[in-house]
Amino acid sequence: MATVKLIQYADAAPEVQAVFDDIKALRKVKDVNNFWKALANQPKNIQRVWRETKEIMAPRALDAVTKEMIYTAVSIVNNCDYCIHTHTAAAFNKGMSEEQYQELLAVIGLAMQNNGFATGMKVPIDEQFLK
Amino acid sequence: MATVKLIQYADAAPEVQAVFDDIKALRKVKDVNNFWKALANQPKNIQRVWRETKEIMAPRALDAVTKEMIYTAVSIVNNCDYCIHTHTAAAFNKGMSEEQYQELLAVIGLAMQNNGFATGMKVPIDEQFLK
Amino acid sequence: MATVKLIQYADAAPEVQAVFDDIKALRKVKDVNNFWKALANQPKNIQRVWRETKEIMAPRALDAVTKEMIYTAVSIVNNCDYCIHTHTAAAFNKGMSEEQYQELLAVIGLAMQNNGFATGMKVPIDEQFLK
Amino acid sequence: MATVKLIQYADAAPEVQAVFDDIKALRKVKDVNNFWKALANQPKNIQRVWRETKEIMAPRALDAVTKEMIYTAVSIVNNCDYCIHTHTAAAFNKGMSEEQYQELLAVIGLAMQNNGFATGMKVPIDEQFLK
Amino acid sequence: MATVKLIQYADAAPEVQAVFDDIKALRKVKDVNNFWKALANQPKNIQRVWRETKEIMAPRALDAVTKEMIYTAVSIVNNCDYCIHTHTAAAFNKGMSEEQYQELLAVIGLAMQNNGFATGMKVPIDEQFLK
Amino acid sequence: MATVKLIQYADAAPEVQAVFDDIKALRKVKDVNNFWKALANQPKNIQRVWRETKEIMAPRALDAVTKEMIYTAVSIVNNCDYCIHTHTAAAFNKGMSEEQYQELLAVIGLAMQNNGFATGMKVPIDEQFLK
Repeated sequence: MATVKLIQYADAAPEVQAVFDDIKALRKVKDVNNFWKALANQPKNIQRVWRETKEIMAPRALDAVTKEMIYTAVSIVNNCDYCIHTHTAAAFNKGMSEEQYQELLAVIGLAMQNNGFATGMKVPIDEQFLK
Repeated sequence: MATVKLIQYADAAPEVQAVFDDIKALRKVKDVNNFWKALANQPKNIQRVWRETKEIMAPRALDAVTKEMIYTAVSIVNNCDYCIHTHTAAAFNKGMSEEQYQELLAVIGLAMQNNGFATGMKVPIDEQFLK
Repeated sequence: MATVKLIQYADAAPEVQAVFDDIKALRKVKDVNNFWKALANQPKNIQRVWRETKEIMAPRALDAVTKEMIYTAVSIVNNCDYCIHTHTAAAFNKGMSEEQYQELLAVIGLAMQNNGFATGMKVPIDEQFLK
Repeated sequence: MATVKLIQYADAAPEVQAVFDDIKALRKVKDVNNFWKALANQPKNIQRVWRETKEIMAPRALDAVTKEMIYTAVSIVNNCDYCIHTHTAAAFNKGMSEEQYQELLAVIGLAMQNNGFATGMKVPIDEQFLK
Repeated sequence: MATVKLIQYADAAPEVQAVFDDIKALRKVKDVNNFWKALANQPKNIQRVWRETKEIMAPRALDAVTKEMIYTAVSIVNNCDYCIHTHTAAAFNKGMSEEQYQELLAVIGLAMQNNGFATGMKVPIDEQFLK
Repeated sequence: MATVKLIQYADAAPEVQAVFDDIKALRKVKDVNNFWKALANQPKNIQRVWRETKEIMAPRALDAVTKEMIYTAVSIVNNCDYCIHTHTAAAFNKGMSEEQYQELLAVIGLAMQNNGFATGMKVPIDEQFLK
């Protein structure tokens, strides 16, 4: 049903296997998600996307849970089914509580609504934001 | 340039003035933003939206900065100019550091890119998310 | 600032002038909007888009105001500044009341919010809609 | 498959059961849709969303069918599968004719296309909309 | 599961059958896709959409593969499942290579990411684009 | 008006100046666009984004103009004003003809419209795409 083949470990090029190994080690999982098997069709692409993902999602000024919640929020607005499932799960795995998840959803819903109002009425940007 | 009149305090109905007063007191500002002046065309609407905003954005399981960052992320994906300006500023006002802002942007960019990949290749959702 | 030249009547090809004339006659206006001057770079394109617009927006099973409100709703979600301005104005010109406009905005805001909830929680579609 | 449990009536808190009862009475249905069972994880949230939905979707300056059509249009642009199914059905239930539905779709398609043109060519907003 | 009936050839009006025949002849296929069977509920609509599709997607200044790739890119950003499947397949049928497809995805991912950055930071448009 | 400072060459860190130099040399321009000055707030970020952009946008299986047209299409659907201006200009600079641009817009408009129809009617995906 995907538009590309899902590449399994045994069929992957050595440099792709290295990425798979790194993902499995870092995440302590037995197999990588389909997202990575799909990206594996292009060794350069999976290498780049994994390097970025590992670097950007690592906790630094923002902790890991906050980053997963932001990622989930973006995925919900973009309506990316796959990403909603995997990153909501990732947020829970990294420690998001049920209460935090409910508040995440409430903030997203509020922002969606108010985005509609501000865009719909063409509310002019307040002067203090223009200088 | 807005599609509605911006209602100033002096011209507002008493129940709208009460909302303006509440916003100014809570936020310690001299005047409300244009968003509220636009919503003020409909007393019921501004009352409802302010009640929701006050309740949902108050820190509880998620702190105030995290909520503003999530709100900003949604507004960026929805491309709501007005909301991007006001909620990026609100996040800074509530304590977001420059480093956190840079990481917020990086996570949004990564999620946007990966949303494109997962949606474009129609990556099938992994079995563990379907049961 | 546009990415194309805006074609004025005097500079337009005869078949484009014919479209301009038809728009001006039907809408009882002295000049066409910039949208049409931009489309005029491609005679076939402006002819096709005007033919479609005239046919689809004409009142039939849905009246003209309802059609303009739906058009405006789509434009708000797509965040098309130009279209929000012109079609909100068109809805008012064709008879939308201030109260109707406020309700239009409220419905859009509610739908935006609830779209976020349903998409975010991956709410499964009820069985009655699947058969 | 949802990211939350669907709360059934028997397992719901009393204040959630009250919302379920109100929905069932108003809509004359035997059970509420999954959307409400998902929102029921957060009593405050389902109370708020139902209060808003009941108030905003009630016929006033706009009739019930027009409101459902606008809601459906927003849901189509936002690509909310769940909402498209439920609100297209709601529009039909409240009296939308097959002809009106076809015209709704035609207007949405036209607006989508023209949004693309106006945004793509960065058509400058006409002066009459800027003062 | 669709919101409309899918009209089969045998049940279609003569003017719809003529469209089906034209699609089958041009595309050298035994049956038309569900998209056309859904549009067939409205003879005028299917006639108009097919006429547009045939005219716009025909190779002229842009070749057929480039057009299908652009169509696919739009469908990915709009998250139209149906269109992603059919137009990715159409691009392959018309000659898109596996390498080209991988580059198409990479460009879409890059644009998605950079759209997020430019929109999020409200990067001011450079002067040379404003005159 | 941006949410970040625009970093000028003279004020940039050496590793950022190196990126600026590389952009100027490759593009044969005297100064970099505001996009890069905004990204320059985070040396790692501008390094990463420039490395990706240079690699992904370079002609290989797809030529440079086709890549710019796809980038522009994504930016139009995402409504990224900044990106529409810069990448439409880039496409022209790299050789897109006026005729090709008009066809690009026509394909985007058609896809937008048909995305609306397929999503709105929940057209079921044809069997040949599901196996």
